[in-house]
Amino acid sequence: MDKIAQQLMMSRPRTKQTKAFTEDEMEEEIPSPEIAIACILPKPLDLKSTEYDPQQSNAIEYLKKELLAQGLIVQLSDGVLTEVFLTVAAPLEVVGRAAERLQIRKPTEIGLEVVFDWERRHSFLRQPVDNSLFSWTERYHCMNLIISGLTCSADKPLTFHRPDQSGEFQVLPGELILPKLKMAGVVKEMFPLHVENKRKELMKKWPYRWLSLWSQPIDEVYAYFGAKVAIYFAFLGMYTKWLMFPASLGALLWFRRLGTFASAVPIIFSMVVIIWAVLFLQFWKRENAGLLSRWGMIVEDSDVRAMRATSASEEQPKFSGLNDKTDDVFTSEAEADRLEKEEWMGRLRSVRNNGLVFLAVVCVQLPFELTYAHLNKIAPYDIFRYILTGMYLFIMQYATKFGGTIALHLVKTQKYRSKEAEADGLIYKVFGIYFMQSYIGLFYHALFHRDFFVLRQLLIQRLIVSQLMNNFTENLLPYLNYRYAKFKSVKEDNEIKKAAGEKYVKHHASRIEKQKLKPTYVSSIPSDLEDGLFDDYLELALQFGMVTMFACALPLVATFAFINNLMEIRSDSFKLLALMRRPVPRAASSVGAWLMIFQHMGVAAIVTNCALLVCLYDEVGDWSVEPGLAAILILEHVLLLIKVGFSWFVPEEPAWVKAKRMKRIHVQSLVSRQLLSLLEKTRSD
Amino acid sequence: MDKIAQQLMMSRPRTKQTKAFTEDEMEEEIPSPEIAIACILPKPLDLKSTEYDPQQSNAIEYLKKELLAQGLIVQLSDGVLTEVFLTVAAPLEVVGRAAERLQIRKPTEIGLEVVFDWERRHSFLRQPVDNSLFSWTERYHCMNLIISGLTCSADKPLTFHRPDQSGEFQVLPGELILPKLKMAGVVKEMFPLHVENKRKELMKKWPYRWLSLWSQPIDEVYAYFGAKVAIYFAFLGMYTKWLMFPASLGALLWFRRLGTFASAVPIIFSMVVIIWAVLFLQFWKRENAGLLSRWGMIVEDSDVRAMRATSASEEQPKFSGLNDKTDDVFTSEAEADRLEKEEWMGRLRSVRNNGLVFLAVVCVQLPFELTYAHLNKIAPYDIFRYILTGMYLFIMQYATKFGGTIALHLVKTQKYRSKEAEADGLIYKVFGIYFMQSYIGLFYHALFHRDFFVLRQLLIQRLIVSQLMNNFTENLLPYLNYRYAKFKSVKEDNEIKKAAGEKYVKHHASRIEKQKLKPTYVSSIPSDLEDGLFDDYLELALQFGMVTMFACALPLVATFAFINNLMEIRSDSFKLLALMRRPVPRAASSVGAWLMIFQHMGVAAIVTNCALLVCLYDEVGDWSVEPGLAAILILEHVLLLIKVGFSWFVPEEPAWVKAKRMKRIHVQSLVSRQLLSLLEKTRSD
Repeated sequence: MDKIAQQLMMSRPRTKQTKAFTEDEMEEEIPSPEIAIACILPKPLDLKSTEYDPQQSNAIEYLKKELLAQGLIVQLSDGVLTEVFLTVAAPLEVVGRAAERLQIRKPTEIGLEVVFDWERRHSFLRQPVDNSLFSWTERYHCMNLIISGLTCSADKPLTFHRPDQSGEFQVLPGELILPKLKMAGVVKEMFPLHVENKRKELMKKWPYRWLSLWSQPIDEVYAYFGAKVAIYFAFLGMYTKWLMFPASLGALLWFRRLGTFASAVPIIFSMVVIIWAVLFLQFWKRENAGLLSRWGMIVEDSDVRAMRATSASEEQPKFSGLNDKTDDVFTSEAEADRLEKEEWMGRLRSVRNNGLVFLAVVCVQLPFELTYAHLNKIAPYDIFRYILTGMYLFIMQYATKFGGTIALHLVKTQKYRSKEAEADGLIYKVFGIYFMQSYIGLFYHALFHRDFFVLRQLLIQRLIVSQLMNNFTENLLPYLNYRYAKFKSVKEDNEIKKAAGEKYVKHHASRIEKQKLKPTYVSSIPSDLEDGLFDDYLELALQFGMVTMFACALPLVATFAFINNLMEIRSDSFKLLALMRRPVPRAASSVGAWLMIFQHMGVAAIVTNCALLVCLYDEVGDWSVEPGLAAILILEHVLLLIKVGFSWFVPEEPAWVKAKRMKRIHVQSLVSRQLLSLLEKTRSD
Repeated sequence: MDKIAQQLMMSRPRTKQTKAFTEDEMEEEIPSPEIAIACILPKPLDLKSTEYDPQQSNAIEYLKKELLAQGLIVQLSDGVLTEVFLTVAAPLEVVGRAAERLQIRKPTEIGLEVVFDWERRHSFLRQPVDNSLFSWTERYHCMNLIISGLTCSADKPLTFHRPDQSGEFQVLPGELILPKLKMAGVVKEMFPLHVENKRKELMKKWPYRWLSLWSQPIDEVYAYFGAKVAIYFAFLGMYTKWLMFPASLGALLWFRRLGTFASAVPIIFSMVVIIWAVLFLQFWKRENAGLLSRWGMIVEDSDVRAMRATSASEEQPKFSGLNDKTDDVFTSEAEADRLEKEEWMGRLRSVRNNGLVFLAVVCVQLPFELTYAHLNKIAPYDIFRYILTGMYLFIMQYATKFGGTIALHLVKTQKYRSKEAEADGLIYKVFGIYFMQSYIGLFYHALFHRDFFVLRQLLIQRLIVSQLMNNFTENLLPYLNYRYAKFKSVKEDNEIKKAAGEKYVKHHASRIEKQKLKPTYVSSIPSDLEDGLFDDYLELALQFGMVTMFACALPLVATFAFINNLMEIRSDSFKLLALMRRPVPRAASSVGAWLMIFQHMGVAAIVTNCALLVCLYDEVGDWSVEPGLAAILILEHVLLLIKVGFSWFVPEEPAWVKAKRMKRIHVQSLVSRQLLSLLEKTRSD
């Protein structure tokens, strides 16, 4: 670390301004290594030495030179095998200049969000969490911009050897360097690095804090992982905390048989859970708004965000403004018609895609699931059942992957306003598949066979199996993977050395090497639109569905879910901190599509619970209406009304967040009058 | 008019700038009379002369002097009786200066909404409809501000005679003049005036254009009456246009008996109407957004608008900005807690008030209505029925007035964010009463007695009676009132003259006098929150409820409604132009609370139609479920799903409006970077 700091002092680009840095700015100027670029060292043919040899790898040296020229701080470190790692860090000013180019908009003290400008950095608000100028998300994206935007600055083509010695390749002047080096096999990957001391500190405060049940250091998680991860954990934590209520009520109702009162338990518990779900989601929206306000994030209309993203590359403002009739394309009738047509075409395409997914799920997946459930039901011996389940699981594993791929293709045919809308579209489609897969068997037993015993069995099975399975796949699997990869690389290295006649030396893999061996945090659907959070949210959503939609069948569901989530908080945070590479930070201001899914499941829960209640009480199956069915029918409508009522009752934005937002707009409006006169003054100059 | 123009040239306050006015500004500088202040002339005790005598009415002369001092153009004209009228008009600059004081925010060419500034008026966007700088609403409110804000500029108390000669009264220095004069009885009222040539032009284009069924000159209505009235008529027009489809389908289904197909008519027609209602309301939102965009209105969050209204009186911007920790009350925990507590208290108060209205409606009104319906049903002779109905109508007339007053009191106990939210709260409460009154009788016959014959009879009665009643109360009543008032005033005048021994002269009342005799456009509930549009919207909403909620009972309902609305467009516009004083323009950007009411009735229609279908098909009353009831139950859920689906499918903002909004935000963001550097420059100066 010291070495990097020294290097920084030497390489710091000359700043234009003469003012001395304040103390905290000095501090920020010393960055820790943030991104590693794994490069392959050309394997020496004679195998004499596995040490890094600068002479042999001029492509890597060239990359290092170009990175240094950008003002970045670069360090080379040697890997166990034939790899070297370039660790890259960026001084504050380099990030700031890149933010200018990226046209990152940041809130300022005048209440307006303004495109960042390094020369006027003092006017921009700092991160409320750690008082730094840029959040981790912004810093990463700026560095990524710099590194992937490197162009060859030489005035003649440069020639390098390929690392596999299969020949040579050229980098032409003005060409993007990184894609070329990746193609040639010199650069293998690029990933963000953990910051060791911060990671250890978080470890102590987060997965290892056993005594506090659901409280988490969300602000620090935000500072370290970015908003998307932090919002997931805030949601998980609040969900768990809220689950305690139905969990304890469910356990109480289940274990204390209540005599004559017992027959009312399903109705009471399902009503409680439905109202609980509505309130929880409303209060989550408040919590979410509060978090964003605390983190100093300004939530923009998704349309506005999309517009900004497309117009970021445009040139400087012209003052001709809105009054300018010459280029006002929006006043023309033809243009409005064109836009309108485009809009409806997009809508229809979206209907088509959703319709296709719906048809595929209903016509292909539904019969398959029903067949499995039916065969499982009528199977005479347990052995058949096991074989059947094995086959089913095997097929489903590929079927969901396949379904995910199709959904991804469908999403790609549509034109979304933004990357986030696209990701949301994908989530809805894939969730449709998982929804059918998870619940149709349960409904089959409940509604067709009215077999509540099997339903309860299945629910308990699911909750416990999914719990075990999850912890296995989420934690053990990556860990084993990592151990195996480490073992393999050390072994290979030793074999090479043995072949070269060297003595066996036990290697200690460096920190960077260790991180490189860890898996990336990716989702189970093969898409760059989503990261590993997709799987975590999916798990939560399916669990939420079981808790709400089958509340009347088994009050214990909530209890199981509660216990599971207490573990989930710990295992998920441990996974992120210890078992995975640091995830690439993604911008997000909310739970996104998942909130809609949770809300819709809340409504579905009203209908399913009422349907289950009918099946539960109408055991004879003669559909006699009075008083049972009629009462349940009325109950359904009353619950729907209650849902609407509570959604209205709980405001989605806490009063203090609103007050803060209002203050911002107020300052902005106070300032804008001044602005107008200033603009006129400059125009007349 | 010429006289006023001359006077204007003389009295125009000296402008600070030397630049010559452009031609269209010159044009705008000649205003037509806009506001009349009716003043009572002190009745001469000897009755010798009824002519206006300046010597006797020094209070009026004083008012005129003060108005002239403000730069307003004032004209005195003589009324038939003992009244004089001061007509007031304002030159553009006077309006502009008042707009500065009112802190009216207007869109500018830089995309930001800025507080108006007369010196920089060229930077503000003009009204797209008529290219004037201020809309009628803005102009009226500015003039109102000037006139009601007049303070006594003399340095010693002024003494005037009371017009009824009962003594004297004093106006102290610095005191508000108008309230004092009103209290003393010198000033009777103040109302906006029609502009005769524009009114006549609109008459030709609007109520008298018989050939075009529903198209109206909405832009001109906007320019003449302001946004709220224009939006009502746009809504009425679009509603009527859309009604044509269910109207013709309903007539077709009703008059062409379709053989075996006939029994499916109720199901088909109710499904069509429900889907039609959802689509209509979604497309109305698009239409509304389009109108606002065309009129150059920027829709703000209602919270923001409320904030602006309260902070309008604050002083000049401080540049300390958001970073300033010393006065940042919102960071403190205590303040956040206080806000949170206040928020929840407000919520609970709102729940209490709505609960009270609900309870009153259910516990008091419902039994009353049911009793009436029941007595009406069992009455043996028609004569009883007529007496009963007469009594019922008599009681209801007072009951709704009383309910409105209670609702108003409840609304006043709540703290609303804005005037508009308060008006909306009142609308919801009062509509609850009318809803119960209008529909409970219908439901009684349909659901309890399953008497569809009576239901149909009642529906037809209502639609035809309400139609006749409406046209009577809306048009004939004000007209008769006006004629009577005119007749009375002329008669009184003649009597006075006869007493004074003068010869009888047939008077022609002046234009202003005529307008004074016309009624004001007020609502039936005694509140300043609403104007006459409340009654018009109420009528539409009740009609919409009958069309949608009882669709399966009588397809002809839509046909009656369609014919009624074609007349409604004409009678409402005629009423506004010919029978009423020009209404005080009110700010509005949408239909407001009524849209919510329409939407909720659309959802209620799903439930009521399904309930009616059950009663219609299950004539035996044994509630046998298969297949009828089950199918209807499923239908209900499918319809609810369809509603959600269509609401998602139709975007609420047309693409061209969005494009325009995005362009505005884009210009704004381009400009805001410049802004920051300019601010820094001025700060360093």
